[in-house]
Amino acid sequence: MLYLIFYDITDDQLRNKVADFLKKKGLTRVQFSVFFGEVNSSRLKDVVAGLRMYSKKRKSGERFNVLIVPVTENQFNQRIVIGEGEIASEESSVLW
Amino acid sequence: MLYLIFYDITDDQLRNKVADFLKKKGLTRVQFSVFFGEVNSSRLKDVVAGLRMYSKKRKSGERFNVLIVPVTENQFNQRIVIGEGEIASEESSVLW
Repeated sequence: MLYLIFYDITDDQLRNKVADFLKKKGLTRVQFSVFFGEVNSSRLKDVVAGLRMYSKKRKSGERFNVLIVPVTENQFNQRIVIGEGEIASEESSVLW
Repeated sequence: MLYLIFYDITDDQLRNKVADFLKKKGLTRVQFSVFFGEVNSSRLKDVVAGLRMYSKKRKSGERFNVLIVPVTENQFNQRIVIGEGEIASEESSVLW
């Protein structure tokens, strides 16, 4: 099944670790804090477990919110993107 | 049609304005930087135009990314939420 994964993580270091983790799980970065990809049920369990582990590293006062939603290719293709926003120094291989 | 609206806006003031704008357009805040709701085509045009107007106020070095994706109620109900993350001082009427 296809999933969109959105995160709002204020700790830069932790956010970078999550981005690397999601890339290793085969997901594609489609926006600064948004990943997208085909995830089967067993890999979804891995992804959720890994993200829960990272969320426990959240320092007080910092935000760590992740939302995972199943979507279809058609819905993804109907997405509307507003604003560009630098990826800052992280990396620029993004599918907008 | 139902839509999820995700934003990654680093400027606190601008982010608050966007949140207020989306609330006025009848959308429900479901996570710190995520809104959800039924949006007909004409209102969608309003929402997109308004968000584009706000995106022009982005200061250099700040991020302003918005992603709007159509979803079904069923997909929304299958969402997985990880982490809580304070809403900080903004407000707490959130449907997690």
